[in-house]
Amino acid sequence: RTRTPPGPLCSPSERSSPARQAAMAQSPLEAERARASFPVREMTYLLWGGKSATEHREMLEAAVEKEPVFANSDLYCLDRPGRHRRCMQKQRRVIELARELQVPRASVRAAVHDQLGTDLQDLMFLPNIRATFSEEQQAHWLPRAESWEVLGCYAQTELGHGSNVRALETTATYLPESDEFEIHSPTTTSTKWWPGALGRTANHAIVYARLILDGRDIGIHNFMVQIRDLETHRPLPGITVGDIGPKIGYNNQDNGFCRFDRVRIPRTNMAMKYATLSPAGEYTTLPARKVASYSSMTHVRVTIVVSSGLALSAACTIAVRYSAVRRQGFTSRGDGSEECVLDYAMQQHRLLPLVATSYAFHVSGQAMQRMAAGDDVEALHTASSGLKALCSRITSDGIEACRKACGGHGYLAVSGLPELLGNYIQNVTVEGENFVIAQQTTRGLLKQLARARAAALQGAHERPAAAAVAGREGDADYVHDLEGAVSARCTAQSAKDFLSPALQCEAYRQRAAWQLREVERELAEAEASGLPREDAWNAVGPDIIRASEAHCFHVLVRHFCDAVGELSRSARVSPAVAKALESCSCLFSLYWMQEGMGDFLQSGYLDVQQATMLRSAARGMLAVLRPDAVALVDAWGHSDHSLNSALGRHDGQVYEALYASAQGDVNPMNSEPVAPAFEESLKPMRSRL
Amino acid sequence: RTRTPPGPLCSPSERSSPARQAAMAQSPLEAERARASFPVREMTYLLWGGKSATEHREMLEAAVEKEPVFANSDLYCLDRPGRHRRCMQKQRRVIELARELQVPRASVRAAVHDQLGTDLQDLMFLPNIRATFSEEQQAHWLPRAESWEVLGCYAQTELGHGSNVRALETTATYLPESDEFEIHSPTTTSTKWWPGALGRTANHAIVYARLILDGRDIGIHNFMVQIRDLETHRPLPGITVGDIGPKIGYNNQDNGFCRFDRVRIPRTNMAMKYATLSPAGEYTTLPARKVASYSSMTHVRVTIVVSSGLALSAACTIAVRYSAVRRQGFTSRGDGSEECVLDYAMQQHRLLPLVATSYAFHVSGQAMQRMAAGDDVEALHTASSGLKALCSRITSDGIEACRKACGGHGYLAVSGLPELLGNYIQNVTVEGENFVIAQQTTRGLLKQLARARAAALQGAHERPAAAAVAGREGDADYVHDLEGAVSARCTAQSAKDFLSPALQCEAYRQRAAWQLREVERELAEAEASGLPREDAWNAVGPDIIRASEAHCFHVLVRHFCDAVGELSRSARVSPAVAKALESCSCLFSLYWMQEGMGDFLQSGYLDVQQATMLRSAARGMLAVLRPDAVALVDAWGHSDHSLNSALGRHDGQVYEALYASAQGDVNPMNSEPVAPAFEESLKPMRSRL
Ligand SMILES: Cc1cc2nc3c(=O)[nH]c(=O)nc-3n(C[C@H](O)[C@H](O)[C@H](O)COP(=O)(O)OP(=O)(O)OC[C@H]3O[C@@H](n4cnc5c(N)ncnc54)[C@H](O)[C@@H]3O)c2cc1C
Ligand SMILES: Cc1cc2nc3c(=O)[nH]c(=O)nc-3n(C[C@H](O)[C@H](O)[C@H](O)COP(=O)(O)OP(=O)(O)OC[C@H]3O[C@@H](n4cnc5c(N)ncnc54)[C@H](O)[C@@H]3O)c2cc1C
Repeated sequence: RTRTPPGPLCSPSERSSPARQAAMAQSPLEAERARASFPVREMTYLLWGGKSATEHREMLEAAVEKEPVFANSDLYCLDRPGRHRRCMQKQRRVIELARELQVPRASVRAAVHDQLGTDLQDLMFLPNIRATFSEEQQAHWLPRAESWEVLGCYAQTELGHGSNVRALETTATYLPESDEFEIHSPTTTSTKWWPGALGRTANHAIVYARLILDGRDIGIHNFMVQIRDLETHRPLPGITVGDIGPKIGYNNQDNGFCRFDRVRIPRTNMAMKYATLSPAGEYTTLPARKVASYSSMTHVRVTIVVSSGLALSAACTIAVRYSAVRRQGFTSRGDGSEECVLDYAMQQHRLLPLVATSYAFHVSGQAMQRMAAGDDVEALHTASSGLKALCSRITSDGIEACRKACGGHGYLAVSGLPELLGNYIQNVTVEGENFVIAQQTTRGLLKQLARARAAALQGAHERPAAAAVAGREGDADYVHDLEGAVSARCTAQSAKDFLSPALQCEAYRQRAAWQLREVERELAEAEASGLPREDAWNAVGPDIIRASEAHCFHVLVRHFCDAVGELSRSARVSPAVAKALESCSCLFSLYWMQEGMGDFLQSGYLDVQQATMLRSAARGMLAVLRPDAVALVDAWGHSDHSLNSALGRHDGQVYEALYASAQGDVNPMNSEPVAPAFEESLKPMRSRL
Repeated sequence: RTRTPPGPLCSPSERSSPARQAAMAQSPLEAERARASFPVREMTYLLWGGKSATEHREMLEAAVEKEPVFANSDLYCLDRPGRHRRCMQKQRRVIELARELQVPRASVRAAVHDQLGTDLQDLMFLPNIRATFSEEQQAHWLPRAESWEVLGCYAQTELGHGSNVRALETTATYLPESDEFEIHSPTTTSTKWWPGALGRTANHAIVYARLILDGRDIGIHNFMVQIRDLETHRPLPGITVGDIGPKIGYNNQDNGFCRFDRVRIPRTNMAMKYATLSPAGEYTTLPARKVASYSSMTHVRVTIVVSSGLALSAACTIAVRYSAVRRQGFTSRGDGSEECVLDYAMQQHRLLPLVATSYAFHVSGQAMQRMAAGDDVEALHTASSGLKALCSRITSDGIEACRKACGGHGYLAVSGLPELLGNYIQNVTVEGENFVIAQQTTRGLLKQLARARAAALQGAHERPAAAAVAGREGDADYVHDLEGAVSARCTAQSAKDFLSPALQCEAYRQRAAWQLREVERELAEAEASGLPREDAWNAVGPDIIRASEAHCFHVLVRHFCDAVGELSRSARVSPAVAKALESCSCLFSLYWMQEGMGDFLQSGYLDVQQATMLRSAARGMLAVLRPDAVALVDAWGHSDHSLNSALGRHDGQVYEALYASAQGDVNPMNSEPVAPAFEESLKPMRSRL
């Protein structure tokens, strides 16, 4: 059941064949491409880590696209059992293909553009074993998990407990008589709920539970619990497990629930790298335990920053290409010709800043990855928390903005945007709910501020350690001279002056410093009014989030400006590529400054005249980017297969693709010539009157 | 296949039974309800048009809930063919029930909380016949359509043409020899695409097509075209028709495509109220034609304003109730107790303004309905265009904000929010795409401004006619003294001063006037730079939209403040109800003012100190509304059946409901004990290593 594509789908290798080029010379997208100011291919190399890495990726994508099991053309019409079954077929084939091609499984996986139900094996299950189980335990579990005999999931969240992990209710009571734990779900709210792959796929779960020793509650620990029989795949006795039902997205995945009715597991199934329990019931714990639990979360957050750039650019690719093809509204020429909607300033205002933003996320994602390779866990934690929240918020909103910008056709699944959106938006909630996690950034900044003040009092001048790691002045260096940073004032006298990266960096730095000072002041006021510290913190919540965002915007702007500066100086890329990136960086800074105009005025950085200049500078940048719009999205190199979108096709044949998508038997609504409702309801309705 | 509810679902009539009240006394929601400052039932009467109208509605809801066919418990697990079939069963039963109960069909329909595939019969098909077909034609078609023999759809949009109706390609060529039209789809892009009920349900379509007489193109007209056989329901010869595929929402509905291959219809099937064609081919048209086409669109837009309040309040009901039940994060008491998430200032900041906004939309919706009963079509068109866009944008974003505020569980279909969102968001696109339609408001304002200036020059002082109709000073009265309005300055000297409705109205009026003046200036600049009028208009797009929004916010604030003032003075409601509404109005004004801070500062209305006061005033209003949060959503009277949400239940038993929703056989993912993927993929995966 796959439908015939309306025209030749463009596989990466074909993209530049002469025949194809000739055929497309007249298409609106080719006309757009001809206007590009920079060599697109070079930008692609830059984004994907060089020529050979790009080619390797394209080779794998081509290999994947060739295989029928990876065809996504009926994806939007599959029901959930069908999706689960299909994605497991894909997973199986990924493993085979990696062996056949002798490349890492992760590379093949990356070329498969669908959610696979076993992704968490590599993303959470194996990393958790490596991070928290002892070497002896690892020797037991890793080979089994790596050979897919043990299929795992990460079972932390419960029906009643998510963000506040310390309140989990599942118990793991040590029974010295038998040297076992009894895993138990004492209440409805203690039901494990959400773990991916738990519902239908996993046979083991890493269960987070309260360790109970001798009636004492020792707090949350993790345990390896077998939940299904390895041979029959049926749930083991005492275990009630299943899928939690349909979701707004991510419907291949069998997020599951699980209840334990006094299930016994051996003592040696407790993760024992940082905490140990002897057969005699002696418990020990290592101080490194906390930091270790930190670090794996941080890692996933950095991944979310990187993937945000990718997801946002995919949505932009669809919306920008479609907007360049879609003609709607007569031109002023009066000859009945229609405007390409990308030529409306409003459409540009909605889409081009998002294109620039996808590049900004890419640049900061790379910077975070470099930081993650260093060892300043605390600094990384501070930065990554807020960035995860900010990037995932902007990307979620941005994908939906792209969808809306496609008008009616964006409402169709076949536009590709509903699937992209539904899958993506989990990122605002998982790995630290955004409004919970973003607070960590402000908390970290206030800590740094307090330390800086203490150091200043002692005449010392402590620099945050992150500075050394990231090889730059620290992003939070303003804590060392908060008043100085807040007192910066914009010196622009014309719209042109706003194009300066130095001015942009200063503006965002001033706003971040101002916002942090506001939070400090409000916290002090709230505490002075008699609130306990925690309640004061909760009362100031909205400003704590604003401070977190202000800091992260500063980080994004600074990373982008720095990266562009380095590229221009280094001559690592041709001047045209550097110039295009510089325009993206400039639009990114100016657009979001305009969106946060209230802050920049209230902080005193801008005056009212400058606000007008800023708006006109931002508008000017839209015009600068317009000719490169299609080239900038092309450069990301999203294949037609990966976008799976009738609107985002590389060849611009959107109407043929839409029409084809409704034909044939892919759409179960059209599988019978007459709807069953006719005899059952429509005819009787009629005759009743 | 319906699942057993976890506890007694609360039907309207049971809501206040003593047994129930006793049982719930200890639930967190009942504790919230006990704190309410106003009698909730009285507010419900106000919202639903009085006591007897409310009770009538509840009687119908109870009647509907009793019938198994209306059960929505498996809705989220039905596939599209299943949904189509089910909703037609519902439609059939609605017709029967209306007859049995002897009430209008529309009232029964309103009590059925699901999208019915034949809704457009009443919303578009019948109104279009009444509005555009001659009396003789109506005599033929209305009885057939009213008795459901003729099932219709509204077929305007084509694959390549939506917003720009004048560019439609379908042709209706008059053939004098046979006194017929030939309806034809000359290109792929001329395929009709989107009409609701066209895919599987309708047997007739009102087709918009270019009338061709003697080779001349007379422009777009509408025609009644039979597309399916009345007895077999098979497509007629020459007609290719089907469903266009799955969508992000609205999946009960069979939006369809249709191609005509030289299909003949009688001449008398052209709509002939305002344009006629004689058998001899003589064409006449009446000037009223344009206004008539206007007015039906306007009507639907007013409906969207009203339904926005309803949809947003439903989302708020779910999110607020859940937030009052959900406990997450330890309190400062240190006893292991957890904070109810609605007590986080951040959660209040995300939800309470939306609650207030739902009330604002209700009030303006009512005002628009009064206006629609008047006869100033132009004024109504100006106001309704922008309001449709603004209300639908805020509601779409607001539903998603509510969904996110439910954390992980909001991602589940059973939260009810994904369905609500997916269905609702079509409103930003249909009935005039938001960014297209919002321009009409600014266009109308500029026209009024030009007229006012011309009148002023003549010493006269023309008031917009809308003023008389709406029984108030015109909402756009600032066009009569634009400079005066722009020069208004905020006189607040403390946060408290911002609580004044007069100040709030002045603030929004000033911003609207300022924004209109900005647009005027920019248009003039763009034209001065040599752009033709239309191109200048397109270049200034973003500010045209901002001006439209600024005006509509002004309208919303003013309607709300006025309505509250009248209620307080009239003693039509108890003081506590008036006071609660006053708080909503105040939070509504201050919250959105804070969100638009950049404008209010840039326009000169606020200074930097006042910006700080405003923020603190808005924060203060959150605290004022907090105790009434649950009461304010309860007052809307959304039944458990209508919300169909495990999180939004009236009794607050969210965990029991969530757990129950995954059990049984409703969820097809759990219907087999072992997933087919096990033998097919998971086991082979394992053995391959
Ligand atoms: C698609 C998906 C996949 C998932 N996969 C897994 C998995 O594999 N394994 C697993 O264990 N879990 C998984 N989860 C669960 C996920 O980790 C939690 O949903 C997430 O941590 C959010 O927690 P919550 O649902 O308890 O939200 P809550 O914390 O209940 O949030 C509800 C509301 O309260 C607010 N709130 C909460 N605390 C505070 C505070 N301190 N201050 C201010 N506001 C606050 C939030 O901002 C939010 O608005 C998954 C969830 C989803 C949606
Ligand atoms: C759920 C649903 C149900 C529908 N039901 C029906 C039905 O029953 N019958 C029917 O005939 N149709 C129906 N439609 C079609 C609907 O009326 C159109 O989709 C709608 O009018 C928008 O037009 P479009 O899709 O052409 O968007 P486009 O106009 O193509 O919009 C694409 C983008 O271009 C921008 N744009 C377009 N023109 C301008 C401009 N002048 N200035 C600035 N920007 C511009 C838009 O803002 C948008 O971002 C339905 C659509 C949906 C989604």
